[in-house]
This record gives sequence, C-alpha cells and structure tokens, in this order.
Amino acid sequence: MSFDKVAIIGLGLLGGSIGLATARYLPGVVTTGYDADPAVRARAAELGLAGTICASAADAVTDADLVILCVPVGAMGDAAIEIAGALRPGCVISDVGSSKQSVLAALNKALPGTTIIPAHPVAGTEHSGPDAGFASLFHSRWCIITPPEGTDSALVDALSAFWSALGAKVDVMSPRHHDLVLAVTSHLPHLIAYTIVGTASDLEEVTRSEVIKYSAGGFRDFTRIAASDPTMWRDVFLNNKEAVLQMLQRFTEDLTALQRAIRVGDGDTLFDHFTRTRAIRRSIIDEGQDDARPDFGRGDHED
Amino acid sequence: MSFDKVAIIGLGLLGGSIGLATARYLPGVVTTGYDADPAVRARAAELGLAGTICASAADAVTDADLVILCVPVGAMGDAAIEIAGALRPGCVISDVGSSKQSVLAALNKALPGTTIIPAHPVAGTEHSGPDAGFASLFHSRWCIITPPEGTDSALVDALSAFWSALGAKVDVMSPRHHDLVLAVTSHLPHLIAYTIVGTASDLEEVTRSEVIKYSAGGFRDFTRIAASDPTMWRDVFLNNKEAVLQMLQRFTEDLTALQRAIRVGDGDTLFDHFTRTRAIRRSIIDEGQDDARPDFGRGDHED
Ligand SMILES: NC(=O)c1ccc[n+]([C@@H]2O[C@H](COP(=O)([O-])OP(=O)(O)OC[C@H]3O[C@@H](n4cnc5c(N)ncnc54)[C@H](OP(=O)(O)O)[C@@H]3O)[C@@H](O)[C@H]2O)c1
Ligand SMILES: NC(=O)c1ccc[n+]([C@@H]2O[C@H](COP(=O)([O-])OP(=O)(O)OC[C@H]3O[C@@H](n4cnc5c(N)ncnc54)[C@H](OP(=O)(O)O)[C@@H]3O)[C@@H](O)[C@H]2O)c1
Repeated sequence: MSFDKVAIIGLGLLGGSIGLATARYLPGVVTTGYDADPAVRARAAELGLAGTICASAADAVTDADLVILCVPVGAMGDAAIEIAGALRPGCVISDVGSSKQSVLAALNKALPGTTIIPAHPVAGTEHSGPDAGFASLFHSRWCIITPPEGTDSALVDALSAFWSALGAKVDVMSPRHHDLVLAVTSHLPHLIAYTIVGTASDLEEVTRSEVIKYSAGGFRDFTRIAASDPTMWRDVFLNNKEAVLQMLQRFTEDLTALQRAIRVGDGDTLFDHFTRTRAIRRSIIDEGQDDARPDFGRGDHED
Repeated sequence: MSFDKVAIIGLGLLGGSIGLATARYLPGVVTTGYDADPAVRARAAELGLAGTICASAADAVTDADLVILCVPVGAMGDAAIEIAGALRPGCVISDVGSSKQSVLAALNKALPGTTIIPAHPVAGTEHSGPDAGFASLFHSRWCIITPPEGTDSALVDALSAFWSALGAKVDVMSPRHHDLVLAVTSHLPHLIAYTIVGTASDLEEVTRSEVIKYSAGGFRDFTRIAASDPTMWRDVFLNNKEAVLQMLQRFTEDLTALQRAIRVGDGDTLFDHFTRTRAIRRSIIDEGQDDARPDFGRGDHED
C-alpha cells in the first residue's frame, strides 16, 4: 500500500519542506496543508507549500490517509485534538517532532484507537517558518520511525517508502532509544551551543563587538545552532528531560577531567583526547553527513 | 617603510597560506621558508609555498627584514633559539601563535634586544600541514597585533600594512587582552567541542555508528573544530591556562542554570535565553564573519 492523500499540519520549515518534496518526488500524491497562523497559511499558499491550503485543521485532514503533524513537540497534543473528529477510518497519524516518547503519549491520549506511527527526520537548518522550507532538505538524511509495539508492519513499510521517496534513508527504533540517541546527537549540542553563546555575550572584560569580530576563531560554529527557534527548543528540552539530563551529566564529568588536565598542565591527557576526537569527524564525512570542504565551504565564494 | 624580504618558519596551514598570499598580493616581496620536518620542506617546495625553501632556519632568515614564526605556540621558543645568531640587525620578529602573553615571553627570552611584534591572524580551518594552505585564508578576517609597550610605531604600521595587503583587517591590543578575548571566541569553543565529541564516542547506550548517522541533528557542527590539530591545541591550552579556566568557570555556571531550568521545567527561562542568543548570530553574519546560507551552504551542491 501507499499514501495517496497527505495532510500536513504546521507549515514551517519541516511542514513546508515535506509539501515541496512531495510535489517534486511524488507528484501523484495529493497534499493539503493547515497552519494555526493565518499569515503562515497565506504565505504557504503563495509559495505552494501544499496543493490546497485549508482554513481549518479538520478540513485539511478530511480525506487524508496520512496526516503528518509538523508543529513544536509541545503543541502536538493540541494539534491532534483539533483533528480528532475529522479523520477518516484507517488514516495513519505521524509527525516530525524531535522527541518521540512524549509525542507518542500525547497523540495516544488525544486520538485513542487511531494508528499512530511517530517519525523524526534528522534534517533541519537554523531557520524556521514557511519561507525556510526546501524540497531537498531530506536528501541523504536519516528519518527515524518509532512505531509502538504491535503496529501493522505494512503501514510502517508504507511510511518508510514515503520518506525514502523524499530522499531520506530510513531507520526504525523504539521511541525510548530514539530519545537517548537524539539527546546526544542533537539536544545536548544545542544546549551547549545556547549556553556558550549566552556566556560570551554577558562578559564584562570582553565586549560583545569583540566576540563578534573574532568569532572566526571557533565561536561562530556554535552560533548557527544557537540561532534555532526558541519555541521548538524549549519544547524539546521540556519533553526529553531525562535523557538530556543524563547526557549532560556525562558531558560535565568529561569537561571536569579536561579542566583538571589544563590546570595541572597535563599535556599528554589533552593530546590523547584531542587525537581520539578526529576519527569521528572523518567517519561523519565518509558517511555523507557533513562536508569536507574547509570551513564547510564557507570560503568557496570568496576566492 | 615596508618589508621586502620575509622569512616564514613553519610551513603548515598558516605558514603556507602566508607564503601563497604574499606571492599573490605582494609579488615584489621575496620569501624564504623553513620547516623542521624534511618531508614538509619537500612538499612546500613542490607547492611553491615560499620563493626559496631553505635547509636550515638560519639560512632562511639571513637576509630577512621580517621573520614570521608559524609553529605551535609551545615550539616558539625553540624556533627562536635556532635563528638567534643569524638575524641581520633591525630585523623584526613576529609570529601567528594563538596565544600571545606566553609567546611574547618566550621570544623575549630567546631573542633579547630584538624587535618582537607578536600577531595572531584569527583565520584558520580544521586542516593542518603544507597542503592545507591557501592564498585567500586571511580575506576579511581580523589579524590582531599585540606590540609590547614602547614598540616603534613605524614598525607596527609596517606589520599592519603587510597583513592588510594579505586581505586582513588589523586590530591592535595588549597581549593580555588578546588572550582573554581569544579564550572566549576560540579556546573555550574548542575545549567544549573536544569534550562533547569525546563524550558522544564513549557512551554505552548509544553506539558510535548511531552518533555518526544522526550527527546532522547538531552534533556535526562541533566535530569540525574538534578535528583540529592536537599539538596546536594542547599548546594553546597549556599556554593560555588562566584565561581559559576563567571563561570555563563562567560557562559552567551558565550551564548549571540552564540544567536547573530543564530539571524544574522552567520553560520561560529556557525561552528567554534561547531568544537572546539569536541576535549574536545575526551580528556575526552582518559583520561578514560567517555565512547565512542555510547550513553554511553545506547543501548547495545537493540541489
Ligand atoms: N527545525 C529543525 O531543524 C527540525 C528538524 C527535525 C524536526 N523538527 C521538528 O519539526 C517540528 C516543526 O519544526 P519547524 O522547524 O518546522 O518549526 P516552524 O518552522 O516554527 O513551524 C511550525 C509551525 O507550526 C505552527 N503551529 C503551532 N501550533 C500549531 C497547531 N496547534 N496547529 C497548527 N499549526 C501550529 C506554527 O505556527 P505559530 O508560529 O503561529 O506557532 C508554525 O507555523 C517540531 O516538532 C520540531 O521539533 C525540527
Ligand atoms: N590552524 C589554525 O586554525 C590557526 C589559526 C591561527 C593561528 N594558528 C597558529 O599558527 C601556528 C601554526 O599552526 P598551523 O595550523 O599552521 O600548524 P601546522 O599546519 O601543523 O604547521 C606547523 C608546522 O611547524 C613545524 N614546526 C614545528 N616546530 C618547528 C620548529 N621548531 N621549527 C620549524 N618548524 C617547526 C611543524 O612541523 P612538525 O609537524 O614536524 O612539528 C609543522 O610543519 C600555531 O602557533 C597556531 O596556534 C593556527
């Protein structure tokens, strides 16, 4: 089986990119879209983010056989309540939220008896809103599907096929494991980046303009992800609290060990640690998850 | 006045880039180069990183009116001792080291009575060695010059003019202030990046291959700078210990505050913090110190 009518709820970076990608790679699939914000709906219509932009969530989902919720994780429950009465029998509900255990719980509560298959495409940029979307966002990125136990495997396969068509590579794991993996590969990095950017902007001895001028020394790499949407990230931290706090604990222990090595002048410990971390970078580039051009190609347009 | 003969000691990323940039933007200037590693010297000759590649440091500096030491900060003293007997009177000694107080002290000790004007071009990539250099590395980047008190201002102006010719914007400040500024804009970010990459690769619950696969969620941004040269960075932390430990203390306090907000579920504190940090990113892009293309243009070649 495959999905012929897909409703997208929330037309920002993720929802807009799904709409554009579906139009490009699955031109036979009919899409409808809805966003709580009338201005976003108007802009989405101008940009053609979905085939039809509807005036209510209920309208958007009426004929759909797949609904994808693309709202902040803290808004998933409310978005689901709005569509509860309008779903046709057999419709599959999915989402793109960055945490999965709490989203599954919220959707189960709002839509009892419905087939719910959460998913998370690990693809994004620091930009948000309807103008941020683009059709190739999911190219060569992983999409993690986290079906609850007992989900019909034909439906999981159909959702996998949908994401593959959009260019993604698909993995299946439990919601719990997803939340642990993403805590370290995404949530902790964002928390650290938000922290250091805050620290740097609050110093007395170093001005903010100095921080900005000399950011090419390394700091600027952190500012990209620390410019991500505050609502989205507040919700992620509140919804994946346990795993984030657990990873943070490990990070703090490791930082304390390096701090001690600096304090006592233990160059060997520093050298060994810094040598180990290079290998990971190489694997990420080999896996196609980053770009080996110096500076990610930032300088490509300069020369 | 201006420099006509420039000797470059250390022919890696920085030394090689200075040689290439001088050949392109100051074609009248004669360059000589030396590196302690014979293999690097051979490669530097093939790549034309300097006009003449010499077999000893003393040969390289014989006629120079400017010597630029481009070796790790812990090797500055030794590199200076090697040239001590060979300098012609009036020759200016400079460097590109990432910390300035300790380098100034080491050079003063090795070369008493010589004019020493330390400098630090805040430009680099995660790559090192002779093949990493390129002529446009310094374009639109800042070069910080840290003359000791009482330095002849005509010589500072000549060094500024040299760096400006290579495309850099020049600032002058004290070595002490430099070390504080760079501790926050460069050294602390590298330490944090090295730490989190180490943490992520040592987990039991999440495999290394999962970390690599899902790194596009944010983690990959840290791996770039955590792939930087271990020798260089060991030396930086050992040579700018006080300022790094001071900045680390502030960072840890701020991280503890956000950790607490997550633990108690204080969404407002998180939201406010995440909103504040966006402004810095915008300023860095406006200042030309980073690239506003989504993902730094990582995806530019995909679409
Ligand atoms: N950004 C990333 O890098 C990324 C990557 C992977 C997954 N995700 C996940 O994707 C989801 C969406 O993120 P995004 O980056 O696309 O955010 P976004 O660009 O801010 O878009 C979200 C849109 O949803 C709308 N919305 C909020 N509540 C709604 C509701 N109840 N019904 C309908 N629309 C509603 C928002 O409108 P208002 O502005 O009026 O609230 C906004 O237009 C989040 O769950 C996030 O965790 C994000
Ligand atoms: N990389 C950056 O992003 C960056 C940015 C700004 C400033 N800096 C500073 O620039 C300096 C050089 O860094 P880099 O990135 O260019 O390093 P690099 O690519 O590793 O080059 C350094 C070269 O110096 C050689 N060397 C070491 N000791 C020497 C000596 N006593 N005499 C002659 N040559 C010697 C090294 O040879 P061996 O390999 O045999 O030791 C190596 O070929 C460092 O002080 C660093 O702090 C770096």
